[in-house]
Amino acid sequence: VSSDAQVLVPSPLGFTTHVANAGIKDTSDDFVVIASDVPAVAVGMFTKSRFAGPSVTLSQAHLADRSARAIGVISKNANVATGHEGIADAAELAEGIGKHLGAPTEEVVIASTGVIGVRYPEGAVHRAVTGIDLTPADFTAAARGIMTTDTTAKVVSRTVGGATLVGIAKGVGMIEPDMATLLTFVCTDAELDPDTADTIFRSVVERTFNCLSVDTDTSTSDTAVLLANGLAGPVGPEEFEQALFEVMRELTRACAIDGEGAETLIEVNVTGAADFTQARRVAKLVVNSPLVKTAVHGRDPNWGRVAMAVGKASEDERISPDHTRISFAGFEVYPDRLDAEALALVGKAMDAAEVDISVDLGVGAARATVWGCDLTDGYVRINADYTT
Amino acid sequence: VSSDAQVLVPSPLGFTTHVANAGIKDTSDDFVVIASDVPAVAVGMFTKSRFAGPSVTLSQAHLADRSARAIGVISKNANVATGHEGIADAAELAEGIGKHLGAPTEEVVIASTGVIGVRYPEGAVHRAVTGIDLTPADFTAAARGIMTTDTTAKVVSRTVGGATLVGIAKGVGMIEPDMATLLTFVCTDAELDPDTADTIFRSVVERTFNCLSVDTDTSTSDTAVLLANGLAGPVGPEEFEQALFEVMRELTRACAIDGEGAETLIEVNVTGAADFTQARRVAKLVVNSPLVKTAVHGRDPNWGRVAMAVGKASEDERISPDHTRISFAGFEVYPDRLDAEALALVGKAMDAAEVDISVDLGVGAARATVWGCDLTDGYVRINADYTT
Repeated sequence: VSSDAQVLVPSPLGFTTHVANAGIKDTSDDFVVIASDVPAVAVGMFTKSRFAGPSVTLSQAHLADRSARAIGVISKNANVATGHEGIADAAELAEGIGKHLGAPTEEVVIASTGVIGVRYPEGAVHRAVTGIDLTPADFTAAARGIMTTDTTAKVVSRTVGGATLVGIAKGVGMIEPDMATLLTFVCTDAELDPDTADTIFRSVVERTFNCLSVDTDTSTSDTAVLLANGLAGPVGPEEFEQALFEVMRELTRACAIDGEGAETLIEVNVTGAADFTQARRVAKLVVNSPLVKTAVHGRDPNWGRVAMAVGKASEDERISPDHTRISFAGFEVYPDRLDAEALALVGKAMDAAEVDISVDLGVGAARATVWGCDLTDGYVRINADYTT
Repeated sequence: VSSDAQVLVPSPLGFTTHVANAGIKDTSDDFVVIASDVPAVAVGMFTKSRFAGPSVTLSQAHLADRSARAIGVISKNANVATGHEGIADAAELAEGIGKHLGAPTEEVVIASTGVIGVRYPEGAVHRAVTGIDLTPADFTAAARGIMTTDTTAKVVSRTVGGATLVGIAKGVGMIEPDMATLLTFVCTDAELDPDTADTIFRSVVERTFNCLSVDTDTSTSDTAVLLANGLAGPVGPEEFEQALFEVMRELTRACAIDGEGAETLIEVNVTGAADFTQARRVAKLVVNSPLVKTAVHGRDPNWGRVAMAVGKASEDERISPDHTRISFAGFEVYPDRLDAEALALVGKAMDAAEVDISVDLGVGAARATVWGCDLTDGYVRINADYTT
């Protein structure tokens, strides 16, 4: 993951970007266009929120044919719960980008992220689209342009066969994806048929962004889109899926590390589960527990809180204290309870940038990994002081 | 609610208490027995945690006949995930109290609350039960004796007809009851048949303690018990239910006010719902959202976060931004979005010990009220610094 705007990452063929300030909130970059020279296979996953904004509903419609030319993003304002004016703003944005490209509006996907319930400033969308000037792709600048409260730009790239993938992401709060994600866009020059692209993308999102939780809150704007323009020719689906998984796992971890106020990345591995669904459910209960998150913050191997969190899967009668095992930072702490001296050593091992918690349910062979972060005074301060 | 140990509350006939230190953690009171002179109708509700401790499983069995003579509570240690020794400790506690009363062990309900995964100190249960000395009931002392991180003793009483009810409760963290509660015990001299007592108790818990959430974590020890010894004769079921509701609502609010680190009580009212289940589900999504909780802490009428939280009911297609209304502190802020000046006035109205958030779903006539508290630096500090 690069967090330095000067670092150049390998770029797939045939993509251009435009990164600018449209005066949404301040003078920082807040408008990003990523365009493909040719129509690309395009698949997406979106928030399931009942308050999803017009950017989401418009993009869902535009991706129905699994084809797109460009993605347009406005950051620092979500354009959510902004009534008919907000719907018109979203339409104007997609239309303006399409016009600039000489492409149908339906070939443009848009996304918006930031404050909810406030319209874009008067004239901002018009200024943004009339100023579009696409240049050779700079995904690091694009990653920076979509940031809100993020402190680092998140961009990851990989090559697979003759093709290149590059992914960017933003999102550090209001994060509990459920069959969706925050904002993340992956561009590749690999050639994939639409069905394969869709199947692979959903499978990978399921194991990466849908395994991330910062604070249990779900954004109204979550959007994940893959553009594959095919200019580098075909790539084996398995190799492509592995490369995409690596890109999106790195982005997921980068979002957890940059979680609002976070000082510690928490990785929870649940093993011995009956299936992936059970494993991920239990892992999310652990990573989402405020008492587990504060225990990690305090470097306390408080496995009682992990047991409590596992116990919240109340209707799942397969789970029992009799065959559950719990580890902190690689040290098993339950069922064989350690003495105070040994626990203190585990606490010392937790004094790291990443703390791993493992739970073995002892009921099967399935597993899941999820990522989150500790709960800190910083999270409270950021979100109590952030004003509408 | 009384938070002063010197205040005497009206007591029902025929109850005695014993409050003492059994050396569980420090020298504060940690052992409480509440006994009825005669066998009482007894009903209870318990945590559904898969890691429920032996106090819970033993008490569930002892309440199968809906009759009990006494409740015994050890605080400062939950006796959860303590293996066979913990099961033996729970049995010894119930047996010792029964022996003292000359009652069968099955007539004794027990509860325990505090740290998870650590055995009671060697000999503590024996010392506790051999020292029992029942005296005329002092429910305020009992309320104090069951406290853990609580800062106030929670005791409420009401009279109904010729009968008296008194309830005590503890619990300020790890609170998200689900058909259960923290620790709360209500004693009355009203005469109720077991079926009526059970029906009324479940209905009232459903609308009070099951509408409370401090931090979304569910205790392994949650126990709610009603003892009705009948010494004051029969009471109309409707009057009794209303009085019980008032007692338990006050206790619920007292727990929210005393939530770990809490500075503000949050009451969320959801109206216009299709049914109570939908109303409570949405209300819980709002009161549990860390972003709503931090907004309240920051006195920010950030209704966008409330909209986000309502939107998390993703599978409920009856919910729509088109017919949802949101108010803070009595001021409607959505769908008619206020300007900055008006919002600032709403922010000023939120500068109070209690902030009310209302959501009208516009789909029906049902409603629910839930209680919670703001998320503060204090919550983080209490739980990051609390060591195993």
